[in-house]
Amino acid sequence: MADQYAQNQARGEPRRIPSLRWEESPEGPIVVLLDQTRLPADEVELSCTDVPALVQAIKTLAVRGAPLLGIAGAYGVALAAARGQDVEEAASLLGRSRPTAVNLAYGVRRALDAYRTAAGKGSAPAAQAALAAARELHQQDADASARMAGHGLALLDELLPEGNHRILTHCNTGALVSGGEGTAFAVALAAHRAGRLRRLWVDETRPLLQGARLTAYEAARGGLAYTLLTDNAAGSLFAAGEVDAVLIGADRIAADGSVANKVGSYPLAVLAKYHHVPFIVVAPTTTIDLDTADGAMIEVEQRSGHEVTYVAAPHLLTAEGGASGGVPVAPLGTPAYNPAFDVTPPELVTAIVTEAGALSPVTGGGIAELCVRSRQVTIS
Amino acid sequence: MADQYAQNQARGEPRRIPSLRWEESPEGPIVVLLDQTRLPADEVELSCTDVPALVQAIKTLAVRGAPLLGIAGAYGVALAAARGQDVEEAASLLGRSRPTAVNLAYGVRRALDAYRTAAGKGSAPAAQAALAAARELHQQDADASARMAGHGLALLDELLPEGNHRILTHCNTGALVSGGEGTAFAVALAAHRAGRLRRLWVDETRPLLQGARLTAYEAARGGLAYTLLTDNAAGSLFAAGEVDAVLIGADRIAADGSVANKVGSYPLAVLAKYHHVPFIVVAPTTTIDLDTADGAMIEVEQRSGHEVTYVAAPHLLTAEGGASGGVPVAPLGTPAYNPAFDVTPPELVTAIVTEAGALSPVTGGGIAELCVRSRQVTIS
Repeated sequence: MADQYAQNQARGEPRRIPSLRWEESPEGPIVVLLDQTRLPADEVELSCTDVPALVQAIKTLAVRGAPLLGIAGAYGVALAAARGQDVEEAASLLGRSRPTAVNLAYGVRRALDAYRTAAGKGSAPAAQAALAAARELHQQDADASARMAGHGLALLDELLPEGNHRILTHCNTGALVSGGEGTAFAVALAAHRAGRLRRLWVDETRPLLQGARLTAYEAARGGLAYTLLTDNAAGSLFAAGEVDAVLIGADRIAADGSVANKVGSYPLAVLAKYHHVPFIVVAPTTTIDLDTADGAMIEVEQRSGHEVTYVAAPHLLTAEGGASGGVPVAPLGTPAYNPAFDVTPPELVTAIVTEAGALSPVTGGGIAELCVRSRQVTIS
Repeated sequence: MADQYAQNQARGEPRRIPSLRWEESPEGPIVVLLDQTRLPADEVELSCTDVPALVQAIKTLAVRGAPLLGIAGAYGVALAAARGQDVEEAASLLGRSRPTAVNLAYGVRRALDAYRTAAGKGSAPAAQAALAAARELHQQDADASARMAGHGLALLDELLPEGNHRILTHCNTGALVSGGEGTAFAVALAAHRAGRLRRLWVDETRPLLQGARLTAYEAARGGLAYTLLTDNAAGSLFAAGEVDAVLIGADRIAADGSVANKVGSYPLAVLAKYHHVPFIVVAPTTTIDLDTADGAMIEVEQRSGHEVTYVAAPHLLTAEGGASGGVPVAPLGTPAYNPAFDVTPPELVTAIVTEAGALSPVTGGGIAELCVRSRQVTIS
């Protein structure tokens, strides 16, 4: 299994990883995904011919990461429209497939709005409009990545003028989650290209090991100096003064600046505060949800305890959302608490970096202003 | 594999787990260990006929946990003496097998001192003296467990007068690490028996999953209400007000009260401080090392990165200390940072509970006094 990756490395091809693409096949359009549950051992693509298949891919985390979920949701609506399926039902199914990531709901709504607006002209133009909306979102996300990387690197250079940054990151936030080069990872990549990244510390990110499986994969491909660690070992790095800044992504940002992100982010924020290390959230403004007033209002997805009590499951979840496979590491019947996300309050966040600029300190007023500015960026 | 455990459960036998015992076999004495790397799936015993076999068991974590390592070290010296092997060399090998746990060095020295003192009377009496010292240490550790459980529960009841405790613990600190019922786990067990434990939250404790594999096993056997979680999810529990106290063990306590314990303990201490939750260390006074002035002086064992980059390794390490086996979860060649322990400074420790009583606040003067008091407890 690992041979394929070794061969890719041997070929010296850090090719742009196609996390998601729209393809016109003889049997009709399909959404093609890089199956992220198979990485880093296998680079296998998954073809979704209908929305239930795409919903399954979202639930099983074959496709994941807040910005990419938005793009996947938009293409899902376009797929239902192009295949003459029930678009309203498809949108509802997609929107409910994962509750915490606001980008997913945003992407679905954006394609659905385009579809509805054009529906009076007939089903073909409406399907075209949905696809155009998805493509536009995809492109805007790539542009947003580039802008976030620029704003993020400028902020790092301002906070850490001596350069030579040692960045700690959690979960996976690179090209695999985005139409472009990602969010937090894109900033680290920009620092690397500018010769100002000394080391990227990669939290393994239990339970699903997105750091070990995906971020290490992207870091190796990008040629970054990186080191993997258990989530437990981050504290030792802080204590030893080995972390200059923490960079993470976000799955939802509430109106007050509270940040929902992969479970384990909040403990890092507390550690960063205790050690006076900047804690920086990098996310497109599509992650901001002004309808969610504060952190307490954020619905946190609870996932199967199987993700905790078993390791090395080849495919982490079945279509029904029930878990299966892997090696048991706890006694049979052990109950597990498995929230997918946690919430970091704004007072622990040094800055939020978006495509519309960086916000520091993080306040509700600042968040609202970012949203206004993002519309100007999009229009300009 | 898991069937055996299920059968044991079905038999309703929460029998005293024999972590380690001395046995006289027809071929000479042996040290018999419960192989902790095989738990919870298999309950397999490992027979050590000589010190190199015991050293291998220590290095591979077949036998582990600070107090039990001390007992194992003492029996190891007795084994070398009884088998007519080079006792001084055996003591040196044993003492160097794991650097952070001070109890190991203590146990080795105690049996070695007894051996040397009796050496003038001949090799048989000297071997008898070493064995008697090991047995005495074993019994004293069991007594210390019971005393720690009593002092710890009294402290919990004082700090949390409403009872109904929700305790978070990290790594494994029960009968598997001790001549008795353990350290931190023994306190939770005492609270359970007193009807005052609402829930034991069990950190899985990456990389070697001692929480998932061993603490969950002991909690299930003991009938405690327990829930397993990834180390990342502890922050969410604190934020939700679901943790009343943290109870952990220790591998070495410096003269200033700094506590070396399983990696991930320090982040919990910072979280506990931030949330005003008591952070309680439970360890016998043999864990205190007055020769180590402070936390910076504690040598932290760095273990193979293989423990991080592979999961579900059936046997975690080879005899040489090199790792092997398991399922790769990171790209080949990924470098990993893998300290086995971290160090928590005294200002983050609410109390240290020993067999000689509880110390709070934790100060260098208090630590020295505990050591004096422990000698009185031992003598009385």
